[in-house]
Amino acid sequence: MILALAGGVGGAKLADGLMQLLGDELTVLVNTGDDFEHMGLTICPDLDTVTYTLAGIAEPSTGWGVAGESWAFLDQATRLGGPSWFQLGDRDVALHVLRSERLRRGERLTEITADVCCRLGIRAQVLPMTDAAVRTIVHTPQGKLPFQEYFVKERCAPVVTGFAFAGSESAAPTRELDAALADRDLAAIVLCPSNPYVSIAPILAVPGLQQRLKQRGVPIVAVSPIIGGAAVKGPAAKMMRELGIEPSALAVAEHYRGFIDGFLLDDADAALLPRLAPLGLAARAVPSLMKTSADRRHLAEAVVAFAAELAAGR
Amino acid sequence: MILALAGGVGGAKLADGLMQLLGDELTVLVNTGDDFEHMGLTICPDLDTVTYTLAGIAEPSTGWGVAGESWAFLDQATRLGGPSWFQLGDRDVALHVLRSERLRRGERLTEITADVCCRLGIRAQVLPMTDAAVRTIVHTPQGKLPFQEYFVKERCAPVVTGFAFAGSESAAPTRELDAALADRDLAAIVLCPSNPYVSIAPILAVPGLQQRLKQRGVPIVAVSPIIGGAAVKGPAAKMMRELGIEPSALAVAEHYRGFIDGFLLDDADAALLPRLAPLGLAARAVPSLMKTSADRRHLAEAVVAFAAELAAGR
Repeated sequence: MILALAGGVGGAKLADGLMQLLGDELTVLVNTGDDFEHMGLTICPDLDTVTYTLAGIAEPSTGWGVAGESWAFLDQATRLGGPSWFQLGDRDVALHVLRSERLRRGERLTEITADVCCRLGIRAQVLPMTDAAVRTIVHTPQGKLPFQEYFVKERCAPVVTGFAFAGSESAAPTRELDAALADRDLAAIVLCPSNPYVSIAPILAVPGLQQRLKQRGVPIVAVSPIIGGAAVKGPAAKMMRELGIEPSALAVAEHYRGFIDGFLLDDADAALLPRLAPLGLAARAVPSLMKTSADRRHLAEAVVAFAAELAAGR
Repeated sequence: MILALAGGVGGAKLADGLMQLLGDELTVLVNTGDDFEHMGLTICPDLDTVTYTLAGIAEPSTGWGVAGESWAFLDQATRLGGPSWFQLGDRDVALHVLRSERLRRGERLTEITADVCCRLGIRAQVLPMTDAAVRTIVHTPQGKLPFQEYFVKERCAPVVTGFAFAGSESAAPTRELDAALADRDLAAIVLCPSNPYVSIAPILAVPGLQQRLKQRGVPIVAVSPIIGGAAVKGPAAKMMRELGIEPSALAVAEHYRGFIDGFLLDDADAALLPRLAPLGLAARAVPSLMKTSADRRHLAEAVVAFAAELAAGR
C-alpha cells in the first residue's frame, strides 16, 4: 500500500504509473488548494486532472481536461456574457455541475470523488486533501491573487513573493485519510513530481498532517519536478527564481529536507547526487520524464523499489 | 404596442411573427410555471423556447433547444450518474449555468432575461410572468407531479385531473410588466396559441393580473392552439379529454369566455364560427398553422388587424 501526494499533471502521471503497478493498493491524496468557484460551480482542477488521468480519459496533448473535448458550452457562455478565461469543456462541465449540486446539498467532497472514481472505473482510492475549502493565494507585488487567476487568467506572469492557504487553519484530514494512514500495509509515502509550493505545500498545510505523515514511520520519498533546472510543466522553476532560489532538483530536495527520507531525481541531474548526501537523505538518479504510459510505470517501479530499499535499511 | 402572453413552441412562433411585424413594439409575457430545478440548475423551458425562437437559434425540428445542439454534457453527466431524462444540450446548459449563478446572487429573473435577450440581439421585450418562483403541479389519480416530470419524464402519459400553481399566491407582477401595461401605446393583448391550462393559466394566476389585463381596456385576442380537434403540439387536447371536455377550438373559446374579446381559429375550424357567436365574442377563421417563418408573420398580421378592427368597433 502506497500513499501518494499529488497536484496536477506531473503528479497525476506518476499516480497513474503507481496504479498500473499497485491497482487498489494505492491512495492518491490530491491538492484542493487550487479549487475555485466559477460561474457558480465548484471546480477542482488538480482533483479532476488526477481523476481523468487515472480513468484514462485525460486529454493527452495537455494532460488536463477530457480527451477529445468539445467547447459548445464555453462558446455559448461567452456569447451570453460569461467569463471565457477558464477553459471549460462540455464533458468537464458535467462533472462540475453534478459535483456543485452535491456539495450544495451537503455531501462531502471525499464522498462525491469516490462515487465519480467508481463510475469512471478507477481502481485506486482518490482523496481530496481535506473536505474543507482551502484556497491557495499567490502573493505578488501587485497584491494577492486567487490561484486560478494567477495560474490561468494571468498565465503565471506576476512575480510571486509568497503563498497563503486560506481556510487551511480550520481544515482537517478526512476519516478516509485517517484510515489510509492507519492501514497496517502502508509501505511508503510518495511526494509526486508536483509543484512544491502550490501542489504539495497546500496538502502539508492541513493542520497536523505533515507531522502525522512523518510519525507514521514509513519511508517518505519525493520525486523531483525539476529536471535540468527547469520544471517539466508549470511555474515551479519560475517561482523558485522569484523566491531567490536557483531552480534545481537540489533546491527541491533542500525544500523537503527534514521531512523526506529519499529523493529521486532525473538521470540528467545525476551530477547533483554528491551534493544531496549532506542533506541526510538517500538519493537516486532515474529516468523520470514521463512521455508514455510505460514511462509512468517504470518511474513508479523505481519509486516503489527505492522505498522498499529504504525500509529494508532501517 | 402589443402585449403577447406565451408558453412554449406555438406561443414562441406567434411571438416571432409579431416581432417580425412590430420589432421592439412587442412585449412577450412568458409562462414560468414550468420552470424547475435540475442538477442544481434553474431551468426555464418556456422562457428559453421564446428566447431561442426570437433570437433565431431555436432547433427547427423540435421548436425547443438550440439549433444544431451537441450532447457531450448530457452524455458525461449520465456516465457520472446524473439524471438523463431531461435533454440538456451543451449550448443550452451555458444559459442555465449563468442564469442559476445570477439568481443565486440575488438578481431578478427579469433582469437576467433582459440581458440574455440583449446579447442574443432580440428586439422585443421578453418578460417572465413574475420574478417569484411559481411551479405548475399536475394533479393525477396517482398523485401530484411537478410539471416537467409529467411533461418530459412521464411523457404526458398520466391522466390529468387538475392543476395547481404553487407559489402563485405570493407572486407579483414585475415593475417591467407594470410599465408595459401603463404604456399609452398598448393597442392589444394577445393570448398566443399556447396550452390554456399549463401555459396561459399560470400567467393569469399571478394575483390581480387577469383583472388588470381586462381593465386595461384594449382588445384581448386569443389564437386557438387546437386545430381540427387536435393540439398542434403538446398535450392540450389530451388534457381536455381527461377533464371531460371535447377538444376543439370552441372549447378553448369557452375556456376564455368573459376574458377575451376576440378569438381566432383555424380555417379548418371555420364551421365552428356560428357556435362562437353566442359566447359574446368576435371570431374569425384564418390560416393559423405556422410551418414557415412567413406563416408566423401572416398569422401575426391577422392578429394585429383583428385587434385593430375590434378597437375601431368600440
